[in-house]
Amino acid sequence: MKKTKVVIVGGGFGGMFTAKKLQKLCRGNIDIELISKINYFVFQPLLPEVAAGTLNPQDAITPLRTLLKGVHVRLAEVTGVDFEAKQVILMQGQKKLLQRVDYDHLVITTGQIANLSLFPGFEHHSLTMKDLSDAYRLRNHVIECMEMADVTRFADIKERALTFVVAGAGFSGVETMGELTEMIERILPQYPNIQRAEIRLVMIQLDKRVLPELPEHLSEYTLKQLQKRGVDVWLNTGIRSATQQAVYTNDGRSLNTRTIITTIGNGPSAFIKSLPITLERGRIPVSRELQVQKLENVWAIGDAALIPLNADADKPLYAPPTAQFAQAQAETLAENIVKCMYGRPLTPFHFKPAGIMASLGGNRGAAEVYGMRVTGLLAWIIWRTAYIGMLPGFSTKVRVAIDWLLDLFMRRTIAYLGDSDRPATRYMDFSTGEVVQQANEVPAGFYVVLSGSVQQDMQTSSGENKQYTLKAGDSWGSKALKEGRLTHGKITALEDTRLLLVQREDFQRLRGAFEPLNELLATRER
Amino acid sequence: MKKTKVVIVGGGFGGMFTAKKLQKLCRGNIDIELISKINYFVFQPLLPEVAAGTLNPQDAITPLRTLLKGVHVRLAEVTGVDFEAKQVILMQGQKKLLQRVDYDHLVITTGQIANLSLFPGFEHHSLTMKDLSDAYRLRNHVIECMEMADVTRFADIKERALTFVVAGAGFSGVETMGELTEMIERILPQYPNIQRAEIRLVMIQLDKRVLPELPEHLSEYTLKQLQKRGVDVWLNTGIRSATQQAVYTNDGRSLNTRTIITTIGNGPSAFIKSLPITLERGRIPVSRELQVQKLENVWAIGDAALIPLNADADKPLYAPPTAQFAQAQAETLAENIVKCMYGRPLTPFHFKPAGIMASLGGNRGAAEVYGMRVTGLLAWIIWRTAYIGMLPGFSTKVRVAIDWLLDLFMRRTIAYLGDSDRPATRYMDFSTGEVVQQANEVPAGFYVVLSGSVQQDMQTSSGENKQYTLKAGDSWGSKALKEGRLTHGKITALEDTRLLLVQREDFQRLRGAFEPLNELLATRER
Repeated sequence: MKKTKVVIVGGGFGGMFTAKKLQKLCRGNIDIELISKINYFVFQPLLPEVAAGTLNPQDAITPLRTLLKGVHVRLAEVTGVDFEAKQVILMQGQKKLLQRVDYDHLVITTGQIANLSLFPGFEHHSLTMKDLSDAYRLRNHVIECMEMADVTRFADIKERALTFVVAGAGFSGVETMGELTEMIERILPQYPNIQRAEIRLVMIQLDKRVLPELPEHLSEYTLKQLQKRGVDVWLNTGIRSATQQAVYTNDGRSLNTRTIITTIGNGPSAFIKSLPITLERGRIPVSRELQVQKLENVWAIGDAALIPLNADADKPLYAPPTAQFAQAQAETLAENIVKCMYGRPLTPFHFKPAGIMASLGGNRGAAEVYGMRVTGLLAWIIWRTAYIGMLPGFSTKVRVAIDWLLDLFMRRTIAYLGDSDRPATRYMDFSTGEVVQQANEVPAGFYVVLSGSVQQDMQTSSGENKQYTLKAGDSWGSKALKEGRLTHGKITALEDTRLLLVQREDFQRLRGAFEPLNELLATRER
Repeated sequence: MKKTKVVIVGGGFGGMFTAKKLQKLCRGNIDIELISKINYFVFQPLLPEVAAGTLNPQDAITPLRTLLKGVHVRLAEVTGVDFEAKQVILMQGQKKLLQRVDYDHLVITTGQIANLSLFPGFEHHSLTMKDLSDAYRLRNHVIECMEMADVTRFADIKERALTFVVAGAGFSGVETMGELTEMIERILPQYPNIQRAEIRLVMIQLDKRVLPELPEHLSEYTLKQLQKRGVDVWLNTGIRSATQQAVYTNDGRSLNTRTIITTIGNGPSAFIKSLPITLERGRIPVSRELQVQKLENVWAIGDAALIPLNADADKPLYAPPTAQFAQAQAETLAENIVKCMYGRPLTPFHFKPAGIMASLGGNRGAAEVYGMRVTGLLAWIIWRTAYIGMLPGFSTKVRVAIDWLLDLFMRRTIAYLGDSDRPATRYMDFSTGEVVQQANEVPAGFYVVLSGSVQQDMQTSSGENKQYTLKAGDSWGSKALKEGRLTHGKITALEDTRLLLVQREDFQRLRGAFEPLNELLATRER
């Protein structure tokens, strides 16, 4: 008899635990394939600790193959589903060849992606906390800011480098700010030219309190803890836009900063949007049994799915997008697939979490466990103990425990591992009056104006001052790069402006290989 | 009285230990500034262990600020020296502003860089083992190869993915191959579709023996150990060239591979070449007292310097470029700077190392210590103990010891952290007949032919087969990207060919922003 083939798309909490549970329920009777873009499972609640250097990056993750022995793990990107043929379409390997994989049951659990399109400039100028590379990037970025602030002679550069903004004060935002504050305090003594008073930590929250998911009393405690440690919390404030140099709020305030960490704004991924399913609130609507309507043997859980918790059509209640819920959904889902195979009735999803908790950094926490409210050191210990228990895989548990132990008596490392993953092309936003480039800088690369306009102030060889306006489609920078000299002109944004920067090394390679581009540029730049 | 200002360029073994010793000799009387491109010290001998996943990347490095309290550490890139004005010229910070730093004494200890220009294609298609990012990249690359080999349906892709080549069998080469072999053996059980027999490990060595720095008896032992563990060692063989798909040797052999690790070929950096000093053997010649001739108060040590060990002009003997020697030179150099300050006579450099040793992976080593030759487990234990002792900083020692301890009883992680630092533009070499692109692939980006030529086999919409030849300056790929479709044509190299690839995402951004480029391409591609 042919084994039932279950294909799971996504290797997060939902996908990983579905595979684990399915295997436990019917080892051998079932063929499980898990398709993931990354070959490891990320324990997202620990990402702020990775960002702060408490945990080694590799210790917040566990390889899927190690966790799921016997499950076929495929490193590939799913691009679509052929529901008629019951096939998943994916792209894999060096050559990115398209391939089809058959399924009897399909589980969609790809989560959501950061969607910052509501806030102009945030997509290009803020850091998110979604996966391991985000945490790693943030850590490096903060150290880069400290190094830069330590050597610069310019007050405005120092101010921008030492202002750290977190947008959103939910769990992820509060924990990130807590860990960030502790990290900065611990590494500060190694930077002789930086005073604590020069560092500014600001948290921007639309709601009237931090951690609105927790009871009011714990929100107040958390707010006081943050303020005590020097964090400026702006409540009832929304973010409006961000540029290369600043963040702007909806009540007209602004902060000069190079560090904006966004923990709000989620949306469906391109894959989810491409499915022939009508999304609700950006999610795939499923039945209480976790099945996608009108499709045969298709299931969805986790952040990608909209899961009703009650049967009341007037006052619908949906499962919150948390790791705890995704894990519980995976259990129900695996059981329902097996029931489905044997023609038994399915069970609706039901879950009541044991508790809810946040780490605030600095050995402080806030928690509500079995109805009791706990704060301070005790809550923080509960938090750490609970997470050690939840971590999958023995070796990850040991490594995290050792990291935490070492962190108690060792200095935090400030190794700056470079921002080698800075892309070759990037979009940059500027507001009216912001300076894009000074004269006599090493040119950053080739700039194209996408929208808005900038003013170029130049001095001609005869010493005359000239001003030019560059509009959408205009470009600059290629001439200075070609002649191997510093920038001549100062460039200032005349209005809200978006630019594309092609980093100098990549631009030089392209122009060196492709002469027609050179000829084109020669006629277009001053 | 103004303090004497010593500026040290480079934060490797030479620079770091010079700063440390100088500070010890005259705390307070001297102003020490160390300028480094990275803010941490790399313990290079441990890089193969990072590549193999035994050590956490952060544990093979120590932040310079932590090691050198009281020393001014500046994260910047030195671009030149004004010996007249006694100033170092550097580029630092976000804006890459040029700045000058005064010195009374200048110490140049920037090491060497990998120079693969003698071997065509190696620069673009081989991995080196110079710094932390190299080790990190190699580890990721090997796991990527395993993941790819596990899912591919194509025998040639599998063969290339599972062939691992190390060029050079000195310390770095042998230790890298030893660790690589152990890593692959330990992670292999997690890849059900890969058999041990499909994996090929090849070491290419120009000399007639491996580890020529060690006595013959230890070389033989090392060779046998490598062979016992399935490594194919090609002695008396030089590398000739490399392409995207293969490596070629000077005796006409070749291997299909995507993994070539080069541990040979060093040369002066651009900074060293830019100095008004006549280099010898690619190094800065110095006196036995470590002073650069004809320049006042300029010193050089480490791999960047050519340091005579005797006074015999006929049979000159020079210091080997090893970490042990650099560290010893730093001691002499610091003492000589102080002697110079007080007008005392300088001491010539003299050093006799206590021992020499190599780790072969798999708990085996080879060593000669105080004239005794040791092999096997004992040599390996000596190796690890000695390195724990040499590691700078208490916290690094503890972390490395814990990593080693955990490695004894824990599974090696196979988390694949992605190759996010793959540059947006890259050069690719192909030999006659090698296939650059198949039809019906997801296009990788925009290609330009730099030299050589390729054949494009296409089918027209009427089903007719057409062949075109693309030569230097010709390009393809932009049309498929624009239309969002798969590649139409198969592309094959007609001769030795070099291409530039602009990765698709970056290319799409540039063309989206810069309409003239689009117009240009519309007239140039089929």
